[in-house]
Order: sequence, then C-alpha cells, then structure tokens
Amino acid sequence: LARDLAIGRGSVVDAYAQLVCEGWLITRQGAPTRVAAVPIPEPMATRPQGPLPLRHDLRPGHVDPASFPRRDWASAVRQVLTDAPDEALDYADPRGRVELRNALAGYLGRARGVRCSADVLMVCTGAAHGMGLAFRNLAAAGGRRIAVENPSSPRLPQIAAAAGLQVVSLPCDEHGARIDEVPRLGVDAVMVTPAHQYPLGVTLAPERRTALVRWARSTGAVVIEDDYDGELRYDRQSVGALQALDPEHVPPALRIGWLALPPTLRDAVITTSELINAAPSSLEQLAFARLIERGLFDRHIRRMRGLYRARRDLLVATLARHAPELRVTGISAGGHALVRLPAAKHSEADVVTGAAEHGIALTGVANYCRGHDHEAAAQLGPALVIGYATPVGHSHRAAITALGHYLASTA
Amino acid sequence: LARDLAIGRGSVVDAYAQLVCEGWLITRQGAPTRVAAVPIPEPMATRPQGPLPLRHDLRPGHVDPASFPRRDWASAVRQVLTDAPDEALDYADPRGRVELRNALAGYLGRARGVRCSADVLMVCTGAAHGMGLAFRNLAAAGGRRIAVENPSSPRLPQIAAAAGLQVVSLPCDEHGARIDEVPRLGVDAVMVTPAHQYPLGVTLAPERRTALVRWARSTGAVVIEDDYDGELRYDRQSVGALQALDPEHVPPALRIGWLALPPTLRDAVITTSELINAAPSSLEQLAFARLIERGLFDRHIRRMRGLYRARRDLLVATLARHAPELRVTGISAGGHALVRLPAAKHSEADVVTGAAEHGIALTGVANYCRGHDHEAAAQLGPALVIGYATPVGHSHRAAITALGHYLASTA
Repeated sequence: LARDLAIGRGSVVDAYAQLVCEGWLITRQGAPTRVAAVPIPEPMATRPQGPLPLRHDLRPGHVDPASFPRRDWASAVRQVLTDAPDEALDYADPRGRVELRNALAGYLGRARGVRCSADVLMVCTGAAHGMGLAFRNLAAAGGRRIAVENPSSPRLPQIAAAAGLQVVSLPCDEHGARIDEVPRLGVDAVMVTPAHQYPLGVTLAPERRTALVRWARSTGAVVIEDDYDGELRYDRQSVGALQALDPEHVPPALRIGWLALPPTLRDAVITTSELINAAPSSLEQLAFARLIERGLFDRHIRRMRGLYRARRDLLVATLARHAPELRVTGISAGGHALVRLPAAKHSEADVVTGAAEHGIALTGVANYCRGHDHEAAAQLGPALVIGYATPVGHSHRAAITALGHYLASTA
Repeated sequence: LARDLAIGRGSVVDAYAQLVCEGWLITRQGAPTRVAAVPIPEPMATRPQGPLPLRHDLRPGHVDPASFPRRDWASAVRQVLTDAPDEALDYADPRGRVELRNALAGYLGRARGVRCSADVLMVCTGAAHGMGLAFRNLAAAGGRRIAVENPSSPRLPQIAAAAGLQVVSLPCDEHGARIDEVPRLGVDAVMVTPAHQYPLGVTLAPERRTALVRWARSTGAVVIEDDYDGELRYDRQSVGALQALDPEHVPPALRIGWLALPPTLRDAVITTSELINAAPSSLEQLAFARLIERGLFDRHIRRMRGLYRARRDLLVATLARHAPELRVTGISAGGHALVRLPAAKHSEADVVTGAAEHGIALTGVANYCRGHDHEAAAQLGPALVIGYATPVGHSHRAAITALGHYLASTA
C-alpha cells in the first residue's frame, strides 16, 4: 500500500493502527486484516432543539448568552492548560478546587458580605444541584419539613420533595417572606430569597431578616438562602447575603455554582455530595478562579449590571408610554420584573395566551404559586413575570416594543 | 486625582467604577465616596491537599493525569469559543448537547458495538452521577431491590442505598457474575461489569451474558452495565457492551460521562435528571464532541492503550522475576490487575500494612467485598488490587520496582 500510494511505510502502519482503534478494521495475529462488520447506525431521530417558535421570549430564568466573555474565558482556559499541575487533572477535592474556593471566599466577602473561608465553600453544578445537596443533607440529618416561599421557582418544591422533604408554604407580601408565620409552621428549615424575592422582586424587610436569624438561632433550624442575583442591584448598594448560593449571572452553560456552608454542616454535606458526585470540570473551576483573581469577573458583573439596568429602564419607560395603567413593582435588580395587571380588566391566563398569538412568550405569576386553589395567586392579583435578560443582545428592544404594543392593545 | 496622577479623567472614573463594583468603595448620590468597611477575611484554614504522604500509589480507580491531551483540548475549547452559537451558552437539553450525543452515538457504535441514537443518550457528570440517575429512576418507577456484584466498587452499594434501593449481593467467580443466582434473588435490576469485572478483572462468560439478557427479557427487569473501561483491551478484540456507561479513560477532571438508555426509559430518566440537574459544562461537551469527530479521541485511546499495556506488562514481568509465586489474574485490560497471594503464607491486611511502611499504598480485595463476615473475601482468598494507571508517567517504573522488591521480601 505504501508503494502504491508512494508514501512512507510508517504512515500506512499508523493509518492501519488508527483504523483498528476506531473500530473499522480487525487485526488478529497470523490472520489477514479484515474490515469490521460495523453496524449501520440507525437514522438519528433527535427531538427538535433550538429557540422557541415564538419570536420574542420574555420569560424569566435565562441570561443573555451573547454577553458571555468568550475571549476572557478562552484565555483563562488556555493558561490553565499551560500551567496547571498534573494533579489538577485527577479527581478533585469533593468541595471543588482549592484555588477556586480561595478566590470565591475573597469575592463573596467583598461583593456579598459573606464571611466564609475556602474550607466551608463547596463548588457545585448550579442551583438545582446545590439545593439538592442542601436538601438531601437536611433529610439525612433527620429533617422532615421545609418552608419554601410561595410564590417561588416551581422547580424548588420538586427538588425538595425528591430529596424526601415535606414542603410547607411560606406566604410572601410586599416586604418579602412572612417570617412571622415561620414559628407556627413546625419546620426544620426555611428556604428564602431575601435579597430579591423570586419572582415578586421585593427585598426581605430588615426586621424580618433579624427575626429569621433569631428564630433559626433559638431553634437550631437551618436557613438556606438562594442569593441567585445578589450582585445585580441597579438602584443602591447591594443588600448583604445571609449565605450565598449560586448567583444567576454565572453563565448557565458553565454549570458552576457554590454553597457557603455553616462549619457544623460541612462534613455532612461533603458526604452527601460524594454520593451524587456531580462536581463541575476542574479545568473550568481553575479558569473561573483566574477570572476572579484578575478582576475580570467583577468587570463582567459590572458590564452586565449596566446592560440589564438599561433593559429594565427600557421596559419601565415602554410600559409607561404604552400601558400607563400597569405597574412595574419590585426593586430595580436582577433579570426580571413583576408587572401587575389591573385585576378588574385582565385575566392573567388570557393575557399570556393573547401574547403567544402575537409571537411573545410570557409567564404569569400563577406559575410560581402553589396550593390547590391558588389562593396565593388570587391574593397577589394578576401579574406578569417579565424576564428582560433572555432575548439576545440586539433583539431585546424589539421584544420590549412588541410587548408594549401588545399590552396597549389589551388595555 | 486625574491631575495628581497625570492620567486621563476617564481612567480615574473607570478605576472608581471597578472599585465600587469589587466592593471596596461605596458611592451614594450626593454623598462623598467612602471606603467600604470590608470584613477582614478569617485566615484560611484549608485541609491539606495534594498527593498522599506515601511515595508510590498503586491503588486503582485513577488514571495517569500526565497523559491528558492538553494541546488537543486547548485547541478544541478555543474553536468552540470562536464558533459556537450563542444558544450554546444558555441552558442545554437535559440530555446534553446534541452535537456531543451525535458524536457519541457514532463512536459507541463502532468502538463498543452499542446501537443507540443520539436521542437515547444522556450526557452525565461521571460514573457516580450516571448511576445515581439510573438508580433513582429505578426507585421512582417502583423498583426496590437491585443485585450488585460482590466484590464491586465500594461506592456502588452506597449510591444505590442513597437512591432508596435495597442492595443484594451477586457473587462472582472466575467467569464473572454468577448469573445463575439472579432468578432466586427477587430483584428488579442487576448491575454488572461484564467486559471487565471490577475488581476481579475477569470477563463475563458468553453463556452468562446470554442468560442475563434472557432473564431480563422474560421478567422485564433492568440490566445496568458499567462499561467503565471497555475500550482498554490489550489482548484481543473488545467484547461488545450490553450498554455503555461512563468509560474510565475519560479524564476524571472533565466530569463527562454518558448513559445509553433503553428508549422506554428515556423520558423518565430525563425527568429524574432535571431534578438533580448536574449536567457537565456545555462548552466542554462541545469541545469533547470535536475531539471525537476529528478522530483525536480515538487517537488518545490508542495511545493510552499502548501506555497502560506496557505498564501491565512491566507489572507482570516484575512480579515474575521478584515474586514468582504470586499470580496476576484477570484479562489484559483496563488500569488494574488482581494479584493473588498464596493463602497459607499471607494475610492480606498484613501485606497492605507492610507496604505502607515501605511507602507503597496498596489495596486488598477485601475492600471490595460486602457482607458481615466477608465470606466472599474468604472465598476469593487474599489478593491485591493493583492500580497501575495511577502513578504519573516517569514515576511508574519506580513504583512497580518498589512493589516487586517489597513482595519479594515478604515471600
């Protein structure tokens, strides 16, 4: 073959070895090389992927993927691959790489007021994974009931139930979770979003924060804080975190989040995590550590704060012009806003269905409420949870304008 | 300040904005900028990390981190960051990126004889995560008892128990798992390592494979196959997989594995996975897809096969020279070998303890056996499970030589 093709014998041997390795050829000592009977793969029947058929997606829970700092990230990964020690490519500490935990401890201290050492930080694979760890650990320690804000992310009670916990509703009002209700709920833990209630967008009132911490101290119960967008405040200084958990602004494709653990729970959570064992890539943990150390992550947050703030301002201005009877409530923060609809005029479901017919994907607050008769939803009144972070860069303005025109037409 | 430092005003504004963003300064409309009262971080009390105090680590379950194809990986990541669409940076399909699942479907077909479409593949975060998904799904579907090989990875029964399953022992002999025992165990599922029993290193006899599949078909029970090192056969053509799950040779730092699901279980496993939600990084999934598509992953496997084979040969030759009464059993494959010790002469625990005093970390087969009186271990006789993949590149020869000298001294 080498002579036929007028190439070196080594190349032919290499090519054969590669074809054997890839499964196309079969060699056996003393027998001629044969072409393998490779099964013909079935035609790929993949489910359709990609963006919704709707033109404008204004549902919350996503970020603008176009703002990912690709160049910074590529550079950090390249550096890690150049100089990381070999042991970084073996199994990692179950809490994650110490380099990232050190960087996060510094960052959380100055950006979120979280006092924690690298020792009690645990790197996880995003919010659901981190909460799953916390919930499973609670159940393993004998906890049975957890209070979850109502309304909340619909995924949250599902994750708690899958971990074997009974979920009890903690009602919310315009000052956040009703902490005064907590003592009578008979729970072992409370899960809250104090910096920016999800989805109502309000901040937990200071006296309620104090009451919650006091209750936890006196009963020995656990408070789990989801500080999902703590950095993204546009109006004033950030409210410090009780504990920090998986900020929303870390691009979801990276699957990197973190838990700051009370020292007393550290070892138990490590044990729980080793059984699930779904840590993020060590290489990406090291790359992320570099981004933080070099101030590039802070710069990214700063850029995103400006970008999302401008988007929120556009939403508020557009609604004020086209549908002045609608109120945008909640603090100026994060990637979503609560838009209250006049109760007498609108059914929430009708507004959402009508929007879909205009090519706009919306979500009503009822989707975040639990309970058979949706009492909580009724009490909150009809409202839309607008995710202004979702539409990619340039398409954002068109989406908000379309929303304004649509809502004006329903008025 | 700009005048003081003779720099542009813009730079000063930028620096202030960055310092505010990083939490060092506090600005308030109409008030002077103040330095923030940043809490002084506590001194880092990290647990010591890094290599064992023992000089030579010959315990199984690791790979040689020095062989990670850093350059190929860096190049694949750079390309992904250059040309991946923005939607690749948003949340992914719960089964993982379609690009990787397509690449894996082709790869598994030719390399492991697994017939599956991208549609039934699920990308997971390594073996424990994949098994956890399979076990939890089994429990959610009403399964209660699972048969797990004895001996097995000690982690396996823990993961099954954490998923709520009752673990029943499936004994093994020199032809692999005793499939004839399965019907009387009254189980809903069987977990096996047919290509290379872990840790005994034997292959499941063909008639047992057939019997297992027949039993599963007739009872509707589930067979979960851990094909952890299916590609790493040095002696002959690979034995095809029943199903493929998380090959061991994928560098553990990447946290990428995969499950090939029976189509009937697909949707249920997707639901289970969404509650754990610990998928690996989309960027790394895309990078890995490129490595497979370009034949670079096959080339890596081919290189590792040669490297590990040479290591196994060295182990066998060293023991033949220094301790000829010891038998290396199991097939020539993977990253570990079972070394049987003459029962009359050696207590397994004494050999392991003695090795540690000589700076060599070893593991005995008793660590892989379950049951109160370690019946299985007694039946297997004293043996060491030597992991020859662990020591980094050049240090491997010294480790094996030290082992040879030590075992000679115990003879």
